[in-house]
Amino acid sequence: MIAEILSIGTELLMGQIANTDAQYISGRLSELGIGLYRQQVVGDNPGRVKEALSAALSRADLVITTGGLGPTEDDLTKEMVAEVFGLPMVLDGDSLRAIEAFMGSVGHPMAENNRKQAWFPQGAIILPNACGTAPGCVVEAGEKAVAVLPGPPHELKDMFEKQLAPYLMARSGEHMESRYLRIFGIGESAVENKLRDLFHSDNPTLALYCGPGEVQARITARGDDAGALIGPVADEIRARLGDAVYGEGLDNSIEKVVVGLLRERGETITFAESCTGGMLAARLVDVPGASNVLNEAHVTYADAAKARVLGVKPETLERYTAVSAQCAREMAEGARRVSGATWAAATTGYAGPDGGEDGTPAGTVFIAVSGPDGTTVEERHFKGTRQFVRTVATSWALNAVRKRMEGVGSRE
Amino acid sequence: MIAEILSIGTELLMGQIANTDAQYISGRLSELGIGLYRQQVVGDNPGRVKEALSAALSRADLVITTGGLGPTEDDLTKEMVAEVFGLPMVLDGDSLRAIEAFMGSVGHPMAENNRKQAWFPQGAIILPNACGTAPGCVVEAGEKAVAVLPGPPHELKDMFEKQLAPYLMARSGEHMESRYLRIFGIGESAVENKLRDLFHSDNPTLALYCGPGEVQARITARGDDAGALIGPVADEIRARLGDAVYGEGLDNSIEKVVVGLLRERGETITFAESCTGGMLAARLVDVPGASNVLNEAHVTYADAAKARVLGVKPETLERYTAVSAQCAREMAEGARRVSGATWAAATTGYAGPDGGEDGTPAGTVFIAVSGPDGTTVEERHFKGTRQFVRTVATSWALNAVRKRMEGVGSRE
Repeated sequence: MIAEILSIGTELLMGQIANTDAQYISGRLSELGIGLYRQQVVGDNPGRVKEALSAALSRADLVITTGGLGPTEDDLTKEMVAEVFGLPMVLDGDSLRAIEAFMGSVGHPMAENNRKQAWFPQGAIILPNACGTAPGCVVEAGEKAVAVLPGPPHELKDMFEKQLAPYLMARSGEHMESRYLRIFGIGESAVENKLRDLFHSDNPTLALYCGPGEVQARITARGDDAGALIGPVADEIRARLGDAVYGEGLDNSIEKVVVGLLRERGETITFAESCTGGMLAARLVDVPGASNVLNEAHVTYADAAKARVLGVKPETLERYTAVSAQCAREMAEGARRVSGATWAAATTGYAGPDGGEDGTPAGTVFIAVSGPDGTTVEERHFKGTRQFVRTVATSWALNAVRKRMEGVGSRE
Repeated sequence: MIAEILSIGTELLMGQIANTDAQYISGRLSELGIGLYRQQVVGDNPGRVKEALSAALSRADLVITTGGLGPTEDDLTKEMVAEVFGLPMVLDGDSLRAIEAFMGSVGHPMAENNRKQAWFPQGAIILPNACGTAPGCVVEAGEKAVAVLPGPPHELKDMFEKQLAPYLMARSGEHMESRYLRIFGIGESAVENKLRDLFHSDNPTLALYCGPGEVQARITARGDDAGALIGPVADEIRARLGDAVYGEGLDNSIEKVVVGLLRERGETITFAESCTGGMLAARLVDVPGASNVLNEAHVTYADAAKARVLGVKPETLERYTAVSAQCAREMAEGARRVSGATWAAATTGYAGPDGGEDGTPAGTVFIAVSGPDGTTVEERHFKGTRQFVRTVATSWALNAVRKRMEGVGSRE
């Protein structure tokens, strides 16, 4: 089955919101094994909605619309679906009563224009809305179908999960599975070069996605033996990329892997941050359960703070400056000592826009990891905005911890 | 001028990322007074890219594409633009040297497939990429034009602001000006109610945008006297909203305002973070020049760290727990004392998914600000994911600092 998403809403064309509804539906269709080749966005304009809907129906078996189900005059999705299929609009009594009950439950009187939300193209399968006043619906016409969903994300998700997903699974049939390998420390083109021959297969297929500082490889297979087809490809990728593969899963991340490793071993970590200025701690604390592995962390931005809080030697700062391997090492060792944590990671560098007065370029960052078996330091050079340098330096530091914990890194 | 956005990337159809590029461009086109009626998304498929591009060109004067400029074989945007316009691809020597220089500066050897990024449709206006290897371009054909931008958001924004926006302004003609008022601490509907009559004007127009925890009001005027039309409306909004307006400007932020206030006065700040776990420091350090106002900050996640690093009394933790006004107050006062900073802000709360064992709900956060004239504490209740609660709590803490510094808050 091939689907297409048609998002309707002028707020999307004004840039007021990101189209997270389309992202959500796309991800779920992929998991359900339903092909998706296009998304379209149009405003609340009858002509363009009709035109976009007709074009989508000419290409896809299933069109999923979002938005345009509100009570106001410019909400016209159901009306346009009815016109495209040549169906009259009819009032649904159950929906009218449900809307009345919902308005009562939130303490609002039923407005006259809410009645509009109880009208549907004749013959539509109605999808009640558990979180709002706008019911959705599915309109079937031969081999084709249009599913009409509300725009507010929490209403849409509830309706998709509880009503549309079961409907689509029954309608589609074909099984599809995906696995995601998370890769850090090699660029997209280097990954592609190492995996070149694996891209030629039709089933499973292999695709690469590029995130800030990392690459994801998606392996997708169709058919009843999808899982069995994916396994050997994943093994082959792991064999070729080695420890650059840090984990698996669509919503995995380096910070999750690090928290997982620490929890597994009952160990703790601390951070001594200069240029990343709190990002390392903030990323780790994003992971639920971080309180089990992080007791404290320190942002030591000024030289004096590096000395007082972490015990970095004044001679080190004088001789090598704060942006040096020596300083990074003493920051990590000091943070580990004062906190009593099993591991400590430290960052010091020039995030930009300016570099050092000694000519060290912006983007230069030293990353130190101190642990039970010693301290390692790496020097990195990143290019981009201040925000980008800090974000990527944070990821490299987390990856350095991961490699040390996995015993991959060697002592300096 | 009518524009259309064509986003190219299978990752969008897999739901791996939200189409924030389209959101960004849509917002900027609206500010530039360029009409936008449609967005399309297709995967890295030559046939569908060509078809979508041709359809867009049949409807719009300007098509802006995003993505598909990488070094890999499935990156084919420029090639498809060349095919649609019937142009050969030619190698641009300057771009090739820039790519080589970029790869060298980040310490990677130039991969053979990076050369691909230096080829363009003949006659294209090349848009160099300051943040990555993929240059963009504009291809003009009579009244129509296609602007080709890279997918990574930071590369796209830099290229849009510095190169495409000036090009579009020159191409479009009409003078237009916008001013942005940044509003914190009142919800969108409350702002709308207070400004209701101001939305009826055609020139200037007023629009509201909702960010996490904040609202922006955009005032846009057309014509040679645009600036003079905007002024009185901005004054009226400030009069009605009072100290909820914390600043102006599209890329202003509470952290920038706080850094600005501190620098103006030659003062410093420090943070004691529990639930925000480094986000406060990280947000402040995002602002260039933060090193002048922040020497150090502390993440004290565990009770023992709150006591040892900040001197929070064990009795306080015992009697009130760490999530209490008393603890927040002692954290802020302790941080100010140990760092010697002029100001200190502290956060402690339950970010979720779990609340406290004593029944305190997730989303409860205490925010304390300590300064030369004493300490204030506020209790807030946020609703949303762990990430959302932490982000919004960080903004409220920064706003609390801003209000104290402006002398708006009163001592507890």
